[in-house]
Amino acid sequence: MNDWLAAPCRVPDEDAAAAATRRQARLTKPAGSLGRMEDLAVQLAGLQGRERPTAGRVWIAIFAADHGVAAEGVSAYPQAVTGEMLRNFASGGAAIAVLARELDATLDVVNLGTVNDPGDVPGVYRRVIAPSTANIVTHDAMTLEQLDAALAEGKASVRRSLAAGTDIFIGGDMGIGNTTSASALACALLGAAPDTLAGAGTGLDAAGIARKTDVIARALHRHSGADTPLEWLRRLGGFEVAALTGAFVAAAQHGVPVLVDGHIASVAALAAVALRPDARPWLVFAHRSRERGHARVLAALDAEPLLDLSLRLGEASGAAIAVPLLRLACALHGSMATFAEAGVSEA
Amino acid sequence: MNDWLAAPCRVPDEDAAAAATRRQARLTKPAGSLGRMEDLAVQLAGLQGRERPTAGRVWIAIFAADHGVAAEGVSAYPQAVTGEMLRNFASGGAAIAVLARELDATLDVVNLGTVNDPGDVPGVYRRVIAPSTANIVTHDAMTLEQLDAALAEGKASVRRSLAAGTDIFIGGDMGIGNTTSASALACALLGAAPDTLAGAGTGLDAAGIARKTDVIARALHRHSGADTPLEWLRRLGGFEVAALTGAFVAAAQHGVPVLVDGHIASVAALAAVALRPDARPWLVFAHRSRERGHARVLAALDAEPLLDLSLRLGEASGAAIAVPLLRLACALHGSMATFAEAGVSEA
Repeated sequence: MNDWLAAPCRVPDEDAAAAATRRQARLTKPAGSLGRMEDLAVQLAGLQGRERPTAGRVWIAIFAADHGVAAEGVSAYPQAVTGEMLRNFASGGAAIAVLARELDATLDVVNLGTVNDPGDVPGVYRRVIAPSTANIVTHDAMTLEQLDAALAEGKASVRRSLAAGTDIFIGGDMGIGNTTSASALACALLGAAPDTLAGAGTGLDAAGIARKTDVIARALHRHSGADTPLEWLRRLGGFEVAALTGAFVAAAQHGVPVLVDGHIASVAALAAVALRPDARPWLVFAHRSRERGHARVLAALDAEPLLDLSLRLGEASGAAIAVPLLRLACALHGSMATFAEAGVSEA
Repeated sequence: MNDWLAAPCRVPDEDAAAAATRRQARLTKPAGSLGRMEDLAVQLAGLQGRERPTAGRVWIAIFAADHGVAAEGVSAYPQAVTGEMLRNFASGGAAIAVLARELDATLDVVNLGTVNDPGDVPGVYRRVIAPSTANIVTHDAMTLEQLDAALAEGKASVRRSLAAGTDIFIGGDMGIGNTTSASALACALLGAAPDTLAGAGTGLDAAGIARKTDVIARALHRHSGADTPLEWLRRLGGFEVAALTGAFVAAAQHGVPVLVDGHIASVAALAAVALRPDARPWLVFAHRSRERGHARVLAALDAEPLLDLSLRLGEASGAAIAVPLLRLACALHGSMATFAEAGVSEA
């Protein structure tokens, strides 16, 4: 059952944001001279409901899942990589594992179903829905029960983060073929043509992108009867995108700020906001991915990301790389002296 | 004497950079998917002469100095602020002091001369050249002896950083009126018109910027007889810009990578590269400032900064905010598993 999606999201605390804005004006620097670092501190103050927010405790959930559409030859990598990477997340060699360690963040790795199933792996939360979604060119990606299960896994990770204590929630993806699925979903949600959103993914050449564009077009044609965000998500999405969608809605319902990663996570954010527009204030966008469709998804969300470093890895890596910006914004906001405290003359 | 400026800069280690490039290709991610984080690791490998660079030990030198041109009413703040901020750097309330603490970086605060002299302050290195430079509209900013002293103070900070052990050198500025001086110097170095470089500084309105533009034009007219970078630096620069220029050249001569802050530091980088073109490879540009002239200075240096966060504070704050990017780039490069180590299939 996904009726929990009907519950409203928390409303950011305008008083806390206003108090943070007043504090910013008193700190020893020309007003506005710390630019987006000031905006970040004020935004987080509103989301966390306190004049001085913090970003010390960071929860990084990685949802891994395989995609039936990989059978169409839409990835530069074999499907076995999804399961292999689950071990690499747990053993600490993957990019996000290195980043989580450096940031002293909690890494919550969730296996939602992989064709090359690694079985029980220490450090991996095993919640297999199916070995993969169905091929969206010929079938619905998921049954309604599978969609509900994937959404609920996202919510479950948010609940674990709340139990552990967290200031910031990050969600990441792993799944060979998932830019095809996510871009198809974005096309449906935005009413966009496939060639405006299909990109290189893990590294397709022009011929590969042309094939991927055709695969997306065929999937959209097959599922043209769908007409709600939830139905598009069920028919075109991946287990990991559905889990991210559920996580983002649940985080907003529980009042936890979300730092959104790149293209895949942003498509999940698009779905989350389509389902619950009141989730939007809880989403902070970390970076502008090099993946082609991301710019359009960001524009639809009126999102201006913090970083633009030509990243296109996924697995929450771009969001993790942006974490120090949040932490430094909070430190500056919370620890700088005011003009009065420092005895510095004002303008 | 500034004849030390004639010594060549170190040449980056191409073998180490090539080894780092080969290592990047073996790490468990699609090739190039970490974008500029990969480029940063390879660049630092070449500069540090090792396949796996590090950015743990960071030295932040802040050069504070007053400017005679402040008498022209070119700042939104009173000149007393320069001296007041020296105390704020030392007591930990200034933005850069908060950032240095958060980053566990060494803060080397140097007083080169302030009208409102704070005297001996614990934590401030007292190296007063004069209470301020002369007003560039009517006089040469410095004598040759003063220029040499300021350049040497930059070199001295680099020497202190070497003695302490440092992976990255950062230089910052403090000085009411210094965007006027720095923009005038940039106009001279670039052959640019004042209205293309004069900006809001600490917060001028349109009338203030018009006045500042006129002041720069009058200064350039008075010093039109100068025809070398060193002479422009002497006539138009500040003690802190000269110190930063000396520091950047000395860092490049000693093989220490420099992370360059915003507009003021970038004008010093422009002067350093004008004096010693072989200093350029040692400069990594941290951020694109909101100060108007910065884009043109960056373009002249063919620099593409890491961050674009509408910062315009100076005092090395933007460079400090970029430090975690260097550290995470080094961590990813040094600690990620290779495809072979992780047993992950390749493309």
